[in-house]
Amino acid sequence: MSETLADVGEFPLIQRVLADLPQGSAVSLGPGDDGGVFLVDGRAVTSVDVFVEGVHFKRDWASAYDIGRKAVAASAADLEAMGAYPVAVLVGFAAPPDLPAEWASDCVRGIRAEAGKAGLSLVGGDVSSARDITLAVTVIGETRVGLPVLRSGARPGDLVALRGRLGWAAAGLAALRRGFRSPRVAVQAFQCPTPPYGAGAEAAGFGASAMIDVSDGLLADLGHVARASGVLIDLDTRRLEIGDAVQAVAQATGREPLEFVLTGGEDHALVATFPYGQVPQSWTVIGRVEELGGLTPTVLVDGDRWAGPTGWTHFA
Amino acid sequence: MSETLADVGEFPLIQRVLADLPQGSAVSLGPGDDGGVFLVDGRAVTSVDVFVEGVHFKRDWASAYDIGRKAVAASAADLEAMGAYPVAVLVGFAAPPDLPAEWASDCVRGIRAEAGKAGLSLVGGDVSSARDITLAVTVIGETRVGLPVLRSGARPGDLVALRGRLGWAAAGLAALRRGFRSPRVAVQAFQCPTPPYGAGAEAAGFGASAMIDVSDGLLADLGHVARASGVLIDLDTRRLEIGDAVQAVAQATGREPLEFVLTGGEDHALVATFPYGQVPQSWTVIGRVEELGGLTPTVLVDGDRWAGPTGWTHFA
Repeated sequence: MSETLADVGEFPLIQRVLADLPQGSAVSLGPGDDGGVFLVDGRAVTSVDVFVEGVHFKRDWASAYDIGRKAVAASAADLEAMGAYPVAVLVGFAAPPDLPAEWASDCVRGIRAEAGKAGLSLVGGDVSSARDITLAVTVIGETRVGLPVLRSGARPGDLVALRGRLGWAAAGLAALRRGFRSPRVAVQAFQCPTPPYGAGAEAAGFGASAMIDVSDGLLADLGHVARASGVLIDLDTRRLEIGDAVQAVAQATGREPLEFVLTGGEDHALVATFPYGQVPQSWTVIGRVEELGGLTPTVLVDGDRWAGPTGWTHFA
Repeated sequence: MSETLADVGEFPLIQRVLADLPQGSAVSLGPGDDGGVFLVDGRAVTSVDVFVEGVHFKRDWASAYDIGRKAVAASAADLEAMGAYPVAVLVGFAAPPDLPAEWASDCVRGIRAEAGKAGLSLVGGDVSSARDITLAVTVIGETRVGLPVLRSGARPGDLVALRGRLGWAAAGLAALRRGFRSPRVAVQAFQCPTPPYGAGAEAAGFGASAMIDVSDGLLADLGHVARASGVLIDLDTRRLEIGDAVQAVAQATGREPLEFVLTGGEDHALVATFPYGQVPQSWTVIGRVEELGGLTPTVLVDGDRWAGPTGWTHFA
């Protein structure tokens, strides 16, 4: 029998989490007291995401390490989407007492690894027992000199630009659902996203007027921007790259490759609107912001309404 | 059939949470975008707590409103325990799709009510489906001019002082476990704690050398202070008030009243150490900090070791 959380206990588990924990220079107190303490330069930006086994992840489909990484990556992407710089992360961790302690340790390694990659210092956490493994990840960033980039700032005439991949995680998930572990790159994209760290602050610096990360699907997430800004967004599908792996999964599953790109979530690419002429070089223009012209705010695909499903909602 | 979360859906639920949401002056953007935005004066202090149905609460034992209030109160108490001023709160909420929507609404009302009482603005959240109702509450405070009060600053010669009640929540829980709803004041204390809001910052201003909130029990939590500070803490039980309701429950259950006071958690009283002569008037001196004198850091009760259990641990 492998050692379980019940064998290890709450406080030794916390000790394992905290051993040799690296901290950024803004942090004056890491975890272990009633609160973590750190400095914020400019305005503070914060967001929380909850990840539940059986809803957001399955232990069969990804390693504990990747699940820890993905939870932090998805949350860190929210800071990117505000154009904020990363500062601190807190993780609430609930799990059944019979969970192998090694699974928890590997998950914590993943959390720490992705926090390091994202530039976040782990400053707090909590552990509890629960039937489902649950991770609640809170991230805190700072704006430094600029202002945060909201969803509501898109203006007619702005260009819509993308940084990162679309459809890869959805293709990987579709493969896993059919019992495949390939194409490996797509499956890996589902198991752990690679948000374009730093691109959010870059976009803010270039004057992005609105921004969001693609967590639920391009159409769903740009729909939030369209409604918050009161505009139409028209996507030009010729400009959307369809990865080889996405193409391969689409072919194998008899689906439209474009459906993966337009509606697939969890890649955590960044999509932003920029005044004409201000799009950074590393971003790809994929559409335009238009006047409503009497229509309801929405996202058009090559000038038309998209007929298929647009993304994921909970409790549905 | 009453309306469930599945009937209402994720986005309408969020709309209900956000309707007419009050915000403090430090908040420049509340929930609804990728992140909440606010200003922090001094250092930021943050903490997260996870509350799971069946572990931290039972729907039979408290209303949804009280469960929401209690989750925020317990988290806000961590800011108090650092001597910080409250700023912002984020709530991750996971629940089964068949949960009555009214339960969720009432819980959100409780969250909002206690946040208002604690001086916290709700700046972010997340909802998900899950088998168990789970609340992950992250609080963010600020130190303003001073420094946070840690667990590690207690020095021999300091006085140990208390602000708030002890043993009431444990007495209420003991009553509920036996199927009683009385004494009403004890049951209410269990259903929703009343942390002494503002007392943490007051203690910091008076020069508290160490502080913690009593979430797991006085002995367990002062044990953290003793170990972090490398000292002995000696409690004088003659100075510990035993409430009438605690006395009544102790009598009815055949237990020592003092056991409730020394080991009962969830009242979220504040206990702090102060240099001699610096204890604020509204605090009650309950003991002294002593040199180790060759012993391991621990908490003594009237000069002796306490023989009973000291508090709650998870996974045990």
